[in-house]
Amino acid sequence: MTESPVAKIAPEEAWEMLRGNEFGRLAFHLADEVHITPINYAIDAQDRIVVRTAEGSKLLGLTMNADVAFEIDEIDEDEARSVVVRGRAHTLEGHEAEEVEQLPLRPWVDTVKLNVVAITVDELSGRRFSLTRPWRHMIPED
Amino acid sequence: MTESPVAKIAPEEAWEMLRGNEFGRLAFHLADEVHITPINYAIDAQDRIVVRTAEGSKLLGLTMNADVAFEIDEIDEDEARSVVVRGRAHTLEGHEAEEVEQLPLRPWVDTVKLNVVAITVDELSGRRFSLTRPWRHMIPED
Repeated sequence: MTESPVAKIAPEEAWEMLRGNEFGRLAFHLADEVHITPINYAIDAQDRIVVRTAEGSKLLGLTMNADVAFEIDEIDEDEARSVVVRGRAHTLEGHEAEEVEQLPLRPWVDTVKLNVVAITVDELSGRRFSLTRPWRHMIPED
Repeated sequence: MTESPVAKIAPEEAWEMLRGNEFGRLAFHLADEVHITPINYAIDAQDRIVVRTAEGSKLLGLTMNADVAFEIDEIDEDEARSVVVRGRAHTLEGHEAEEVEQLPLRPWVDTVKLNVVAITVDELSGRRFSLTRPWRHMIPED
C-alpha cells in the first residue's frame, strides 16, 4: 500500500477555505428535483453561509425544503482541495437581513429585489487530492 | 439599461465545455437529503455524462433516485462560464460498462471496485458572467 492520494482536511482548514472564497455551488431541492447553481456567498458571524436570491429564482425552492448541500474547491498545480457542506437554509428578515450588508457579500444587479438566505452548517467535510495522478484520486466520499 | 453582465451560452458551446473538461460537481438525492460531490467525468458517444462510483459510496443513492444535477465552470480573468445539467442516472452493466474503458474517463484507485454510472442529459443550460464586476453578476438562474 502506498500513501493514500486522498486526505481529509481538518475542520479548521475547511473553515479557512470557506472564509477565503466567495464562489461556490449550491445544491437544493425544487419540488422532487435536485438543482445546482453557481453562487456568490459570504460567511457571517454565526458561521452561516449567506447568499442572496432574486425574486422568482429557482432558489425559492429553499423556502419549501431547507435541506441543501454546498461545495467549493481550489485547484492548483499540485493538489485540489474541496469542501462540502450539508445544512439547512432559511430566509433572513428585518434586522438579520440588514446585518448582511456588513458582510463582504457583494450586491448583484441593483434593480433586482433580493432575499437573503442563511445556511446553517450541519456537516462539513474537506478533502485534499494529490494531482500528480489526479484521475486516480477523485473518489466520491464514502 | 446597460448591457446585461450575464448571457446565456448556446447549447453547442455548453456541450463543447462539457466535452473539454473532466472535473465537475454532481448533486444527487440520498434518501430525503441532497448531496454534492466533486467528481471526474467523461462524455460518451450517446452524449451521456459517465462517472465511476466506488462500492459503498454515497453515490449509490443514485440507484434509489435517478434524479441528478451536474455543474462545471471555467473562470478566467475576464469572465466565468458555468454549465448546469439536469438528468437521470443509471448504472451501466456488462457490454455498456466495458465500453466506458474506451472513454477518457481515467481510472481511480486500482483496488477499489467500481461501478459505472451514465447520466442522460434532460436539460442543459450555460451562462457566461462578465467578471469586470463579478459580484454583480452571479445571479441564480430564474
